[in-house]
Amino acid sequence: MGKAMNRAQILVEALPYIREFSGKTVVIKYGGKAMVDKNLKRRIAEDIVLMRYVGIKPVIIHGGGKAITSMMKKLNKEPKFIKGNRVTDKGTMEIVEMVLVGKINKEIVSLLNQFGGKAIGLEGKDGQLITARKCKDKSLGLVGEIEQINSALIDLLEREGFISVIAPIGVSSKGESLNINADTAAAEIAAALKAEKLIFLTDVEGILKDPSDEKSLIPGLAIKQTENMLEKGEIQKGMIAKVKACQIALRKGVNKVHIISGKRSHSLLLEIFTDKGIGTQVIK
Amino acid sequence: MGKAMNRAQILVEALPYIREFSGKTVVIKYGGKAMVDKNLKRRIAEDIVLMRYVGIKPVIIHGGGKAITSMMKKLNKEPKFIKGNRVTDKGTMEIVEMVLVGKINKEIVSLLNQFGGKAIGLEGKDGQLITARKCKDKSLGLVGEIEQINSALIDLLEREGFISVIAPIGVSSKGESLNINADTAAAEIAAALKAEKLIFLTDVEGILKDPSDEKSLIPGLAIKQTENMLEKGEIQKGMIAKVKACQIALRKGVNKVHIISGKRSHSLLLEIFTDKGIGTQVIK
Amino acid sequence: MGKAMNRAQILVEALPYIREFSGKTVVIKYGGKAMVDKNLKRRIAEDIVLMRYVGIKPVIIHGGGKAITSMMKKLNKEPKFIKGNRVTDKGTMEIVEMVLVGKINKEIVSLLNQFGGKAIGLEGKDGQLITARKCKDKSLGLVGEIEQINSALIDLLEREGFISVIAPIGVSSKGESLNINADTAAAEIAAALKAEKLIFLTDVEGILKDPSDEKSLIPGLAIKQTENMLEKGEIQKGMIAKVKACQIALRKGVNKVHIISGKRSHSLLLEIFTDKGIGTQVIK
Amino acid sequence: MGKAMNRAQILVEALPYIREFSGKTVVIKYGGKAMVDKNLKRRIAEDIVLMRYVGIKPVIIHGGGKAITSMMKKLNKEPKFIKGNRVTDKGTMEIVEMVLVGKINKEIVSLLNQFGGKAIGLEGKDGQLITARKCKDKSLGLVGEIEQINSALIDLLEREGFISVIAPIGVSSKGESLNINADTAAAEIAAALKAEKLIFLTDVEGILKDPSDEKSLIPGLAIKQTENMLEKGEIQKGMIAKVKACQIALRKGVNKVHIISGKRSHSLLLEIFTDKGIGTQVIK
Amino acid sequence: MGKAMNRAQILVEALPYIREFSGKTVVIKYGGKAMVDKNLKRRIAEDIVLMRYVGIKPVIIHGGGKAITSMMKKLNKEPKFIKGNRVTDKGTMEIVEMVLVGKINKEIVSLLNQFGGKAIGLEGKDGQLITARKCKDKSLGLVGEIEQINSALIDLLEREGFISVIAPIGVSSKGESLNINADTAAAEIAAALKAEKLIFLTDVEGILKDPSDEKSLIPGLAIKQTENMLEKGEIQKGMIAKVKACQIALRKGVNKVHIISGKRSHSLLLEIFTDKGIGTQVIK
Amino acid sequence: MGKAMNRAQILVEALPYIREFSGKTVVIKYGGKAMVDKNLKRRIAEDIVLMRYVGIKPVIIHGGGKAITSMMKKLNKEPKFIKGNRVTDKGTMEIVEMVLVGKINKEIVSLLNQFGGKAIGLEGKDGQLITARKCKDKSLGLVGEIEQINSALIDLLEREGFISVIAPIGVSSKGESLNINADTAAAEIAAALKAEKLIFLTDVEGILKDPSDEKSLIPGLAIKQTENMLEKGEIQKGMIAKVKACQIALRKGVNKVHIISGKRSHSLLLEIFTDKGIGTQVIK
Repeated sequence: MGKAMNRAQILVEALPYIREFSGKTVVIKYGGKAMVDKNLKRRIAEDIVLMRYVGIKPVIIHGGGKAITSMMKKLNKEPKFIKGNRVTDKGTMEIVEMVLVGKINKEIVSLLNQFGGKAIGLEGKDGQLITARKCKDKSLGLVGEIEQINSALIDLLEREGFISVIAPIGVSSKGESLNINADTAAAEIAAALKAEKLIFLTDVEGILKDPSDEKSLIPGLAIKQTENMLEKGEIQKGMIAKVKACQIALRKGVNKVHIISGKRSHSLLLEIFTDKGIGTQVIK
Repeated sequence: MGKAMNRAQILVEALPYIREFSGKTVVIKYGGKAMVDKNLKRRIAEDIVLMRYVGIKPVIIHGGGKAITSMMKKLNKEPKFIKGNRVTDKGTMEIVEMVLVGKINKEIVSLLNQFGGKAIGLEGKDGQLITARKCKDKSLGLVGEIEQINSALIDLLEREGFISVIAPIGVSSKGESLNINADTAAAEIAAALKAEKLIFLTDVEGILKDPSDEKSLIPGLAIKQTENMLEKGEIQKGMIAKVKACQIALRKGVNKVHIISGKRSHSLLLEIFTDKGIGTQVIK
Repeated sequence: MGKAMNRAQILVEALPYIREFSGKTVVIKYGGKAMVDKNLKRRIAEDIVLMRYVGIKPVIIHGGGKAITSMMKKLNKEPKFIKGNRVTDKGTMEIVEMVLVGKINKEIVSLLNQFGGKAIGLEGKDGQLITARKCKDKSLGLVGEIEQINSALIDLLEREGFISVIAPIGVSSKGESLNINADTAAAEIAAALKAEKLIFLTDVEGILKDPSDEKSLIPGLAIKQTENMLEKGEIQKGMIAKVKACQIALRKGVNKVHIISGKRSHSLLLEIFTDKGIGTQVIK
Repeated sequence: MGKAMNRAQILVEALPYIREFSGKTVVIKYGGKAMVDKNLKRRIAEDIVLMRYVGIKPVIIHGGGKAITSMMKKLNKEPKFIKGNRVTDKGTMEIVEMVLVGKINKEIVSLLNQFGGKAIGLEGKDGQLITARKCKDKSLGLVGEIEQINSALIDLLEREGFISVIAPIGVSSKGESLNINADTAAAEIAAALKAEKLIFLTDVEGILKDPSDEKSLIPGLAIKQTENMLEKGEIQKGMIAKVKACQIALRKGVNKVHIISGKRSHSLLLEIFTDKGIGTQVIK
Repeated sequence: MGKAMNRAQILVEALPYIREFSGKTVVIKYGGKAMVDKNLKRRIAEDIVLMRYVGIKPVIIHGGGKAITSMMKKLNKEPKFIKGNRVTDKGTMEIVEMVLVGKINKEIVSLLNQFGGKAIGLEGKDGQLITARKCKDKSLGLVGEIEQINSALIDLLEREGFISVIAPIGVSSKGESLNINADTAAAEIAAALKAEKLIFLTDVEGILKDPSDEKSLIPGLAIKQTENMLEKGEIQKGMIAKVKACQIALRKGVNKVHIISGKRSHSLLLEIFTDKGIGTQVIK
Repeated sequence: MGKAMNRAQILVEALPYIREFSGKTVVIKYGGKAMVDKNLKRRIAEDIVLMRYVGIKPVIIHGGGKAITSMMKKLNKEPKFIKGNRVTDKGTMEIVEMVLVGKINKEIVSLLNQFGGKAIGLEGKDGQLITARKCKDKSLGLVGEIEQINSALIDLLEREGFISVIAPIGVSSKGESLNINADTAAAEIAAALKAEKLIFLTDVEGILKDPSDEKSLIPGLAIKQTENMLEKGEIQKGMIAKVKACQIALRKGVNKVHIISGKRSHSLLLEIFTDKGIGTQVIK
């Protein structure tokens, strides 16, 4: 009984956090190892469904780069990248959409439903959720920049208790599919939903002073500081897109952005249900 | 961080229970030591507010015998009882109502609000919540039997997120106050609300085989068995009214009734968020 | 039949007044002899329920000083006052709350229900209806100043056809009960509800030029005039608090305030359903 | 002030009746002298608007025989009747509709609005309110029998606070206008609305034992008794259609039907707001 | 089958127009030959009902000058006009109202219902739809100028799927009927409803350069140009009122006004469902 | 203008059909050549969007066999069939889901949106839309039989104006994807939605007496007749599954089922907007 009492104690310690976030929207960019490891996938799904049951409104945006590359190889297409952006010809775009929408998105939906959630999978074409135009760099092909998020559809589904799971595919004014950066999509969706928080699940602990040293985690940054770090080149590789997405979200009204490791079990709960949180918090 | 992880783990272990009771009404008869001990009072309030935040709809019915007796003594009125029922003349009834409604009820309301709940205190006169007639034994005076519960008012308040805290005072067709047994009131209210559960917080562990031995707890009973036990005199004193209330609630459609100890910290959470539960469970 | 015809005639003469106040909120401060005399109590209740049935939305705030003093004496506590304000130590506050909430409030609720109303009794703790802080004069103890009125709760109950009956108890941020001046509470509630009218039921005919001469009634005053009268000391004793409350209500947007005698039968109807009205009307 | 007090007293004496009929539908067949006399018209309008303001839902069906006959004469058309039914050729039907809808109906609407009501005029074509077929007696021409009442339209208008004023014109499946007996229309509409009461305003005191003696009024009758009286020929002329309409209404679920004199001032209020009522009450 | 295919092809060609006007209000001033010719009447009704079924919200305002004059003659009253306005004494006003409301309005309502519409006929008195005051030129008698349109009633009926058919009768503050110019009424109603379009059905093709030459149709005009034409006297007779009504509607926020011929079959559909439209379009 | 008039004429000829189907659900099984031919795809999309704009509620279920087989070949997997059912191992199921959900479904959604529709793509996992269990023939692998359709989700989307486009993937109680026959899925969804009509778009004219002779089309059949034909082997190959699906739909309450050719332009409009319709109609 001592153990049970201990558990009860821990539940009530979560009350202040539940109270604080009750009725608020939290957008989660889901990607990296947390989307591949079978055990981590289940932990994340549990966390998200628990969030929904305690009154928080989670919205998921996922990536899927590795699975796309793997499918391209099976179909004998060579993946190409320019500055981290996938060069997306028509054939590649078809593979991107099939893999993101027909495989990864629905796996996440199904897993959330297994834990008792009511999830629904969407991409940009559904109800014109994400309208986009081709990006300026024509050599990238069908890579898109977001024009508008149709937040009314997500609001409707939220009100009815659904968790929206969104693949980062935009639709052009001609109805074409466009490949959208998932970090940017998460930022724009968080902004359109006036989300309380945007959380990036990544493969590192957060923003590091020294990228080679996980212990050099910076727990908090203001938007201005991230600009300086970008200028000085202190942020590198995949983190650049994330930090830029942070800036977009914060400038457009999101309250707080968090870059955390998705490699820990229950990292979402650790972030939301503790005072200290985990990873790096970026604020305005 | 290990401790935090442990906490997250415990939160998600609560998910199946949260899912099961989400949107359901749980009626709690609140009384005994749990209503007197300052620390226990806070634990109970925390539990109830947590229940509300995770989507359960708690409704509280409280007693207050000791405080009434104490106030009567201060006012030089001698409390009298017939078979455990308080003989209630007009002066006594005034004291009963003042103490229950003007003191105990509002203390509970205030405590729940302190923990972030939205509580509202009611008695039978409010919106004609509990209509009653005088009981047959005229020597008891203004002691009442419930005629009807106006569940529409509680439903309205529930829909708007309020926790109803109810003092067991009935109102006669002439507008008089009548003293109602709190256990019976809890049973009738649970029945009127089609509650999923009715939980009695008591000063013992549950129904005991041997009332002198707390270790002789009977974990589960069917309604039929409680009848046999009553006939054979195996249930005694204050437990008799509770067991009879169990029978009323179960016969009128409540799913499960629990008699548990309110003397443990977080006994409500222990009952709801563990498979084994605590105390004695009575089912149909 | 002539008598019946006369009655019908009188009913239709009320039509212009019913039309004028249909759907509007009228806040009534209920106190003094009208709250003690058995016959007057019934007349007031009839008036209020009639108002509700003809589409007016009455909200009642009551006092209860005499009953409190009487109970204090029974409990051997000596009432003390500073400038008309009750010195309220912890023990006094408990008595105040028990008497106001557990006795007077519920009597009014029950009487309104007897005449066919749907009344519900509230105090400041219910749904955090009246939040308050301790007043500056620390020698008064637990006497409070209103911080905020949660008018959403009263609006909800009004929409569902309930008449709110409110005891002037505030709640501090720590959950303590605070003793609130009933006249001020009525003014603040009328302001928060954007009431059409605020009516004070008193033991005098209204504001008198010569307090010793009931025939010196002043039928109408502007807020500015009341200020002058207060300065010159032409308003005295219990009337001072009422006049200050008038000023608060009018400055915060209430349309008209009336100080009338509750000692006449059906004084509320006389005020509302005649052109001349009764008592003193104070306007901006 | 004594007079005002007397008036207040009378208002509260109406409370039990207001309570009883609050929210209920009362269908009024309006005709005879009460529709012609300028003073009576205003009294009736006052009564109806008062009823609406105190929460009763009045619905008006009017006749207009005299005005029709008068207009026919101006247009050199000779009115013809068979057993009290107007022979209605195409030209006559046009006049009937113009006079009922374009004159009488809108006069009533305007008068009700003058007293503060929100009235709207309708006939059978509006939203297919009254569908009808030609009656069997072909010699009557465009005289109709009601097939169906579209009560949804009246319900909608009632919910929005409108008083429906209905001219007894039916519409055939081909879109033709049909002349409907106003008494029957009132009965069918009362039945379709599940009205609490149907009141016929007539030029006599009610059903008389001796039609030549106004003092021989029969205050109450059961439906069975009216059948006997019809068989024995004790009911005559215009009263026959009314009594048959009573029977229809009562058989289809209306609670009470009243045949009263519209020649008294405020006859509607006298009927509704007194225990004795006036005229003849017919019940099941 | 070729014919059927051709028909299907034409249906889908209407899709862009249906999409454009879906959910928008189109006010139609109905008058002239289109209101007299039996075949044209049916075509107009078909068009209006079709518009409703494809999601457009039509509102009809009709005239009726010829039928009024004809009825006046039958009743031996000589029609008189001053500058095109009917001199309207009390007797004339009664005839105007009877003919417009009791005959023409209900014929239109019935015809729309025959084609499957849900039409309801209204005039200014219904729910105080059109309040007006007597016009300045006292020699015109009961001719009115619009004060206010109660668009809430039309909105309510639109939401419930009804087509409002409105006779241009205003009501004075004393409840009198006032004769309103139908073109002006249409303009004011279109403005009050924030209509997308106002369409005048007339007996000419539109605004003509040379009124004697139907081929001199001006397809488009800006409001400024119509002012110049009015000044120069290039617009004459009945067209003057229409052009002034155009100006009112456009200035008060209607998007486009069309003056078209009602003498063609399906002129409304030709205007709405073709790029070119027909008649003269006036814009801001 | 003659051409335009002709077009208007054709539009109003559609009115009776629009009226008949207004507000009703029509389920369309979309497959075969109509899903491949670029021009036909656009015609079908136009038809569906037009249906929505004129008040019909279309729901689309699509197949995709050829695209699946083609993708399997690209990935070097050999398609196998048993009695027309695809043998579906885990790898095949992944390809089925990717192609149906990530390619075909979203292409249809995008095309409908291009024509002005508000389409949303769904599969069985979304909101647990189609729950299923593995079929009895274990050699088929992950082929499923439908257990339940969650019609509440489609109803919600319909109410908000969305067109649901559904891929025939079921979800097992363990969250696995199951391959569902699209004809059966269409029948079960039509039944769950209480659809007015279910239309199968196929590559033949309908049910033929002589499968080799397109002119031997049978225009109408009762369910009983289809049973006889199945028994006698008069129905063959792909048509067998369609006819069985017809029987399911009709037995579960769908009003009419149509098997039509999707190879004609605007075949949906031809079926719905003509008296004769096209193809074979099967009724109960």
